[in-house]
Amino acid sequence: MARGKLIDLMRPLRRNDTRRVARILQRLDEVQIAAQLDNTPPDAQDRILKMLSVERRAAVFAELREETAAELVRRLAPEEVAVLLDDLEADDVADILGRVEETRLRQILTRLDPEDADEVEQLLGYDENTAGGIMSLDFIRVYDTVTVAEATRVVQEEEDPPDQAFYVYVVDDDERLVGVVSLRMLLTSRRDDPIREIMEPELVYVDREADQEEVADVAMRYDLVAVPVVDDQRRLVGVVTIDDIVDVIREEATEDILKMAGAGEELFETRSFWTSLRARMPWLLAAAIGGVLVAAALSGFEGALETVPVLALFMPVIAGMGGNVGTQSSTIVVRGLAVGYVESASLGRLVFRETGLGMALGALYGLLIALVAPFIGARVPDPLALGAVLTLGMMGSMTIAAAVGTSIPLLMNRLKIDPAVSTGPFVTTAVDILGLMFYFWLATVLLGVEA
Amino acid sequence: MARGKLIDLMRPLRRNDTRRVARILQRLDEVQIAAQLDNTPPDAQDRILKMLSVERRAAVFAELREETAAELVRRLAPEEVAVLLDDLEADDVADILGRVEETRLRQILTRLDPEDADEVEQLLGYDENTAGGIMSLDFIRVYDTVTVAEATRVVQEEEDPPDQAFYVYVVDDDERLVGVVSLRMLLTSRRDDPIREIMEPELVYVDREADQEEVADVAMRYDLVAVPVVDDQRRLVGVVTIDDIVDVIREEATEDILKMAGAGEELFETRSFWTSLRARMPWLLAAAIGGVLVAAALSGFEGALETVPVLALFMPVIAGMGGNVGTQSSTIVVRGLAVGYVESASLGRLVFRETGLGMALGALYGLLIALVAPFIGARVPDPLALGAVLTLGMMGSMTIAAAVGTSIPLLMNRLKIDPAVSTGPFVTTAVDILGLMFYFWLATVLLGVEA
Repeated sequence: MARGKLIDLMRPLRRNDTRRVARILQRLDEVQIAAQLDNTPPDAQDRILKMLSVERRAAVFAELREETAAELVRRLAPEEVAVLLDDLEADDVADILGRVEETRLRQILTRLDPEDADEVEQLLGYDENTAGGIMSLDFIRVYDTVTVAEATRVVQEEEDPPDQAFYVYVVDDDERLVGVVSLRMLLTSRRDDPIREIMEPELVYVDREADQEEVADVAMRYDLVAVPVVDDQRRLVGVVTIDDIVDVIREEATEDILKMAGAGEELFETRSFWTSLRARMPWLLAAAIGGVLVAAALSGFEGALETVPVLALFMPVIAGMGGNVGTQSSTIVVRGLAVGYVESASLGRLVFRETGLGMALGALYGLLIALVAPFIGARVPDPLALGAVLTLGMMGSMTIAAAVGTSIPLLMNRLKIDPAVSTGPFVTTAVDILGLMFYFWLATVLLGVEA
Repeated sequence: MARGKLIDLMRPLRRNDTRRVARILQRLDEVQIAAQLDNTPPDAQDRILKMLSVERRAAVFAELREETAAELVRRLAPEEVAVLLDDLEADDVADILGRVEETRLRQILTRLDPEDADEVEQLLGYDENTAGGIMSLDFIRVYDTVTVAEATRVVQEEEDPPDQAFYVYVVDDDERLVGVVSLRMLLTSRRDDPIREIMEPELVYVDREADQEEVADVAMRYDLVAVPVVDDQRRLVGVVTIDDIVDVIREEATEDILKMAGAGEELFETRSFWTSLRARMPWLLAAAIGGVLVAAALSGFEGALETVPVLALFMPVIAGMGGNVGTQSSTIVVRGLAVGYVESASLGRLVFRETGLGMALGALYGLLIALVAPFIGARVPDPLALGAVLTLGMMGSMTIAAAVGTSIPLLMNRLKIDPAVSTGPFVTTAVDILGLMFYFWLATVLLGVEA
């Protein structure tokens, strides 16, 4: 990497070595300072920002993570915020202010340049997870009647050129999007060529209301660095640039990972005890209710437990291995659905293969457990019969788990329920109840004890 | 989206309605056909490809997922493969051929254009997870002594322009990278301006050996659509373009998700029974060994189980809730580490907060379970004492789980072991052993039974 190594600001700051902090700040670029502020407690953020010149402070602010910027916006005076936001593009301002409560938002908007404020309000009107919510209003547009020379002049005269200007969009008299021209084409075409002749007319675009995941899919599939956004009349209203698409891809992956564990939707939530508690409670409540159902289901086997208490010792491994395989299956399905990897034509085959895997793995590890069972120091009534209970019990638990772990997310997806969020507790509970009941039922039959 | 809806090819193909398949193929673009082939069994892939013209077949092939393309390369004759690969850029060819065994690779390379084959071999020499492994050799480069007009001519005369040409890189006499110029700057600058005066000299670049995750981080932080790659003399050797960076971000997220569940590293592995079995066995073996340890640890409490078998009924919920919280904590840490969200300065605070959360959630749900316990139809010796065992047991299990779930991935990370791959079985086993032993110990104390 260029621009020197990342030098830690926090250590000298904690030692109150202000001179050293100032020297380090001079050697870091704005992106590097912002990266450190993102992972710094609020008071340290404020101290570092105060040490920067007004211009640099705004430049650092522009590079902060959205959530960090939003926290700062909540903390600082509206006047200070207006100065920091002044240099940002409208879509970035909207992303940050979308996280701020209404009254504060109003205070800040009235302090922005009226034209900028208008753009921000327009963008805030869209759902933040749609193309409209992440698009930029800053793009270069020409009419389809111009020549290459005229289009080039439009690019040259652009007062406030977008950060990422790689294309010129071509519209007809009704502002409808009809083509796209790369800057390279402009540079390599003859000056008096009509733009219609050099533009790419078969272009890809998305609707304002398109989900941001769909926009990311389109950009990835077609290798685009910008996706034009149109209204219902196919009029060009904005452009989603690749930097925002990259953020979407990363955010959606994080969201899926956290949702699968029932740990919320954003890493930012985990920063506070209370938001984190709230985010986790529903998932755990579902699991607790499941746990009660498991206890109730197993209460029918108290007799067997009393006669052969060693059965209880293997409950964790029987249920746990089932849970593991179930999680593996549902993880494959949830991620496969998210990245378009699960083929709708062969869902049956997928369930079948996973269930087969569960059975094979269950036989393997069941046998393993059965072989070591006699040596763990518990009173074993009939080692052979217990071995059979453990082997078959493990097979049953893991087969059920794989089948359930594959089917539940597929079913959720079919019912248009987000499979990432709801699979976990269902799979665990189902596996615990079905797997352990099967295990105890085997015990009553093979060990000849009463339930 | 443009270009019409995605029409399903598979249904008419299964009905052998070749005419309808041909008609649909005409209405889909190459990206849409490739997207369907990616999720299609091999025989159907072959049938569809045979129906396309040679040119279209190559165009569709270019849009396939790497793994699908590699499978085709393994299946088809080397001559056919050479035709399909002819239009691809060297870095894409290298990605595909990197998945093919050596002898086949040689057969194909000798059939490619010698210059292309050289480039591919050069790229295959790099580790596939480094900047060198994902960079393109196709970029526009000018010397720092030229004018804008001369640089423009270089762009215009580029015979085989890169798909994504948005920048011109500026090098000195020793081929060392000294600056970058966007095509927009070229378009808006005066023709006789020296390139040195309009170029951005403070540019960001990466080393050939840099890990692909580092390249993605740099691109994201600096909002770049292309990251130049240099050798140890800072000579420009390639460029990583944003489409490859996007792939890296998505792949790494999938890898983390799958690794955490012990389900392998790539979704592609899950396509086959045997690779999937192999990918899952180590993780499950660790969990099975853990399960045996749990059984051995609990064997000391057989007496308690015999006297109060109802204790066994609540083992799944005590261990399960602990496991859930432990997974939540470790998920937050693993993902936080992956996206740079875990602040090294406040690891202590993180462990402290998570452990506090575990305790609070344990108290809440422990109480809940204790309240319903008397109603689930089991013979309860002393409902009040059992309630205390359940509440405190749940608190203990969830507190331990949160502490262990946070600490293990942090420790792994410190030891330079990938925290995603190794956390799961450790956390589950530790939680099962510690949580359940605490639970049974509580029972011996509060219910006055013998271990």
